[in-house]
Amino acid sequence: MSDLPKRVIIEEEGPREGFQSEPAGISVANKVRLIEALAETGLSRIACVSYVNPRRVPQMADAEEVAAGIRRKPGVGYSALYLNQQGLERALKGPLDVHGSLRTNASETFSRKNIGKSLEDAFVEQRGWMPIFKAHDIPVEWGVVLGAFGCNYEGDIAPEVVVTRVRQILDEAALLGVTIKGIKLTDAMGWATPLRVERAIGAIRERWPDLEVALHLHDTRGVGMAVAYAGLRMGVTTMDASIAGLGGCPFAATEGAVGNICTEDLAFMCAEMGIETGLDLDALIEAAQVAESVVGRKLPGHVKNGGSLEAIRRRNAS
Amino acid sequence: MSDLPKRVIIEEEGPREGFQSEPAGISVANKVRLIEALAETGLSRIACVSYVNPRRVPQMADAEEVAAGIRRKPGVGYSALYLNQQGLERALKGPLDVHGSLRTNASETFSRKNIGKSLEDAFVEQRGWMPIFKAHDIPVEWGVVLGAFGCNYEGDIAPEVVVTRVRQILDEAALLGVTIKGIKLTDAMGWATPLRVERAIGAIRERWPDLEVALHLHDTRGVGMAVAYAGLRMGVTTMDASIAGLGGCPFAATEGAVGNICTEDLAFMCAEMGIETGLDLDALIEAAQVAESVVGRKLPGHVKNGGSLEAIRRRNAS
Repeated sequence: MSDLPKRVIIEEEGPREGFQSEPAGISVANKVRLIEALAETGLSRIACVSYVNPRRVPQMADAEEVAAGIRRKPGVGYSALYLNQQGLERALKGPLDVHGSLRTNASETFSRKNIGKSLEDAFVEQRGWMPIFKAHDIPVEWGVVLGAFGCNYEGDIAPEVVVTRVRQILDEAALLGVTIKGIKLTDAMGWATPLRVERAIGAIRERWPDLEVALHLHDTRGVGMAVAYAGLRMGVTTMDASIAGLGGCPFAATEGAVGNICTEDLAFMCAEMGIETGLDLDALIEAAQVAESVVGRKLPGHVKNGGSLEAIRRRNAS
Repeated sequence: MSDLPKRVIIEEEGPREGFQSEPAGISVANKVRLIEALAETGLSRIACVSYVNPRRVPQMADAEEVAAGIRRKPGVGYSALYLNQQGLERALKGPLDVHGSLRTNASETFSRKNIGKSLEDAFVEQRGWMPIFKAHDIPVEWGVVLGAFGCNYEGDIAPEVVVTRVRQILDEAALLGVTIKGIKLTDAMGWATPLRVERAIGAIRERWPDLEVALHLHDTRGVGMAVAYAGLRMGVTTMDASIAGLGGCPFAATEGAVGNICTEDLAFMCAEMGIETGLDLDALIEAAQVAESVVGRKLPGHVKNGGSLEAIRRRNAS
């Protein structure tokens, strides 16, 4: 039998990571419409925009306008992502939440190819942001290990490498005088399997039993929900997901882009196993339909088509 | 850590259950083309056709022609499904394998609505087939509990009900003098969750530790692969799946039809966790592409788009 957590926080990545993988040209009004629909579902945190280079990511060129357009609902966190100091400064000028973190990559090769920096240089760059976080009262609570389960250049990532990266994050945090409460493991390249996640989280737990673990999973090879379940069994407290699986279309403009695991499908699985998420599945299905209307085609999520089991139970009881 | 099985048999349902959920009109030649591509993947059993009423299921009206058209490869089992005596007699006239089983439904209501028979009457009907099996040297080795995790009419199915159905199957087998080696649990209505499967299989194991358990899962609500993983952890030895997730299109003619879990995605997950399936993932991806070409649109499987990790490892090593 499983030893599942009582409660999991699902954080919404659709408007940020999902729209980033979609062809450019979705209107500000439509992006705002989806974000506002998501705010009605019980989500406590919605990643809304990335402040990234508009020439490299034209889909996010309207980040300022989207951020300004959202009618914010009390109790919901609306967050903005940044990847360098310029992005951080743009984010701080806007109305959305800016979170601090310490990010590293499991793969040195990927770090060099992706951001043109060694892992050490990436830490050095982030050191420069600390005074900015301090000046804006932004806590640095999470460490992030990108590509924690495998890398398209380096191949399989051993659990020991993940442990090394976590130690480097904690050493860096100690140097900076910040306290890391948890580690997020991400898998944008789709190398995670249930077994790999169990081994990596097990290795972290063995050394740092009090660290929270979060997962950011993509459904590149169809096993994302199995990996999520393995994560739940290992006591993961926070998972990223994307409404309707937004970003997961094989026809999307960004070649090879595959979306995060689907928010409402994950919420369904949690609810049916007695894990609290605070989410309203009917409202999520409505938001998933908004997402489909915004991109103008069917998206990969399943519960929006199959319907909830609660709806069947209600019908049978009436 | 998981205690995963060393080996799992994946049985292909695409040509049978998949095509049954597709709009009618797929040519015999195309059906045969897919079956022959599947035979090159290492699959030991391919469900090819259903001998069912052509007025109720026009997609299977060509069952005789498809069965006759297959160039059979030695070592591959090509099977035919039947649901009543008339279908059984048609199946026996054809060249494909006919398997015996003892089938029941977790839900009495569903049995009455679906086949117009009580559970007891359904057993009585099957008793009549036993002399036919005997005359054709067809063993009766598996029991099947349909809708083992929930029913759209009766709602949740408790593990105790599954235990009762297994007992009824074993009692019936004893009466008939046949030995059941395993129980297949099916979930065409999409009620299974990892927890429900663990509880049902756990309840069976507690009473009959030597019975094999097989799963027939659909991905109605996006958690099919998580359920499959839970099944593997519980020692399931056989799983049905459908190439490319065939039958899983929300635009399909049969309303609400959602396909089985995807063969190549399941094979990928097993291979990456060290579970032998005997399947060639590259050949499965080719067969998935044949399936898409036959139905003329994208199908829901993921590995055929994302590619295998072995392909990346090979590229990096070269």
